[in-house]
Amino acid sequence: MENLTYHTPLGADTLRALGIPKPWTFGLADRVRFGELDALGHVNHTAYLRWFESFRLPFLKARGVTDYGPSAPRLVLKQVECTYLAEMGLGLDYVVTGRVSRFRNTSFTMEFAVWLPGETAQETARGGAVVVLLNRDGPGRYAIPEAGRCAFIAEDGAVSEG
Amino acid sequence: MENLTYHTPLGADTLRALGIPKPWTFGLADRVRFGELDALGHVNHTAYLRWFESFRLPFLKARGVTDYGPSAPRLVLKQVECTYLAEMGLGLDYVVTGRVSRFRNTSFTMEFAVWLPGETAQETARGGAVVVLLNRDGPGRYAIPEAGRCAFIAEDGAVSEG
Amino acid sequence: MENLTYHTPLGADTLRALGIPKPWTFGLADRVRFGELDALGHVNHTAYLRWFESFRLPFLKARGVTDYGPSAPRLVLKQVECTYLAEMGLGLDYVVTGRVSRFRNTSFTMEFAVWLPGETAQETARGGAVVVLLNRDGPGRYAIPEAGRCAFIAEDGAVSEG
Amino acid sequence: MENLTYHTPLGADTLRALGIPKPWTFGLADRVRFGELDALGHVNHTAYLRWFESFRLPFLKARGVTDYGPSAPRLVLKQVECTYLAEMGLGLDYVVTGRVSRFRNTSFTMEFAVWLPGETAQETARGGAVVVLLNRDGPGRYAIPEAGRCAFIAEDGAVSEG
Repeated sequence: MENLTYHTPLGADTLRALGIPKPWTFGLADRVRFGELDALGHVNHTAYLRWFESFRLPFLKARGVTDYGPSAPRLVLKQVECTYLAEMGLGLDYVVTGRVSRFRNTSFTMEFAVWLPGETAQETARGGAVVVLLNRDGPGRYAIPEAGRCAFIAEDGAVSEG
Repeated sequence: MENLTYHTPLGADTLRALGIPKPWTFGLADRVRFGELDALGHVNHTAYLRWFESFRLPFLKARGVTDYGPSAPRLVLKQVECTYLAEMGLGLDYVVTGRVSRFRNTSFTMEFAVWLPGETAQETARGGAVVVLLNRDGPGRYAIPEAGRCAFIAEDGAVSEG
Repeated sequence: MENLTYHTPLGADTLRALGIPKPWTFGLADRVRFGELDALGHVNHTAYLRWFESFRLPFLKARGVTDYGPSAPRLVLKQVECTYLAEMGLGLDYVVTGRVSRFRNTSFTMEFAVWLPGETAQETARGGAVVVLLNRDGPGRYAIPEAGRCAFIAEDGAVSEG
Repeated sequence: MENLTYHTPLGADTLRALGIPKPWTFGLADRVRFGELDALGHVNHTAYLRWFESFRLPFLKARGVTDYGPSAPRLVLKQVECTYLAEMGLGLDYVVTGRVSRFRNTSFTMEFAVWLPGETAQETARGGAVVVLLNRDGPGRYAIPEAGRCAFIAEDGAVSEG
């Protein structure tokens, strides 16, 4: 797609211009690779979960949850889910959007969607993940930093449950 | 693990001997590979979904749903989910168990679990999938063959909902 | 890297501006993903070969070898090789360059390199591949189209051996 | 294949019984998975390199090169190559064989082959790798342990070049 910026966070205005509706305010664009296709020529169902994984890394840094430094928490995935709405093929440009929908003291729930940009973007998949923060060295859980909690509420409209 | 048979369907008796409880009656054993680890040295979360995918192929043939021949239905994944209960490392032997829990006319829901065999097997993950059958050539959905419906009920204790 | 254009063929001038020397005239930029790291935190050695595979698809179209249409030849990989010069880590921007170095009637040899752009780009890997063209439907090999032979010579400085 | 033992080192006698010729004395059997197929329905070329990687881990332990413990050397791949002799499809049982062909003080060269067992096994691919041993903590290279050098010569017929 002409003028699509890959690998760089896309904000609310850019997402709307790509046909992606509210409430999404954070997106990342990429292109389907040959190695992501399965024997039927469609994107394999696990590739979407790789995309969500790739999304989480810059997203959680931008939200102030972790700087991935030596004293950062260890982020552990407790649950994932994905619903497939349309098959995808080789070379397609897509945008992954994600947000935190709710959080507790040491865990949070994310929602994801995959879009084919257009006047009205087509949603090809919808996903979710539950992430828990653990202390890096030693047992026990790690509290979401205050900056992260605030960003979840302000940027994502997340609900605090803890 | 000594005497664990890989890549070959394991029935109820064998599963019980490996410490895997009811209601599971179909299992497949394999071993964690280096390429399934992520940068933290644990099995990546997408590998489990690959294991469930590998499980479905012989399972659905054994249940009489498809022979993967030229006139077989096209099996499309509509939804997957996985809950992670314990991290797994390199070289571990594991057993994937799966069953159909309920079905309609042209779709069914599966449950999966991953086990570390032992006197009492440890469950490391639990998953699910919704599969839809489509006609191979042309539009429209494909009805689950009668043999498949019967096997879902008789072998898996599945509930017919359609 | 600021202003690096991903997933879009980069020509000779752009490559020189990224510090990549002659004779390379075709490049594609991308970024290292989490899923490409292995348990030691470095890019797994197979990821480079995936990058070369992803490179070949648009490259061979641009060179006029195939349009990937229904009457296009089947491209079969006969040989690959890769030499690793420096380890790569998460999030790095890289450029893959490739060219045809020599060709016969129905096969050709490619060279690849991976670069970290900079005033003088750092080469992190160097690869090669031998590709054979087969008829899509039926036995026998397929001759490289004349347009492809000319482009190999004119654009890549390839040597005709057949 | 009936009676093929997966994931367990196969010695010279077993390999001969599977139709695999001299000089191979160490093999590992496995089965092609759905996730290893590419969009054309054949095993993707990178899967073979994953198989060689999986082979190296138990092989190098058996040869006394490393116990993968905290003071073990860091094994770094400097070069890989693979020649593809026949396409492979879903569900095939295969055996990977490997050996060290020559070694220096801190590096060694391996050869690999992939076989479909049978009265006369069919070779579907042939590969190679150069591995360097580095000190785990700190700069510099690590000498191959004496036990490894002896096993390379005695078990693999390797040539000492250093």
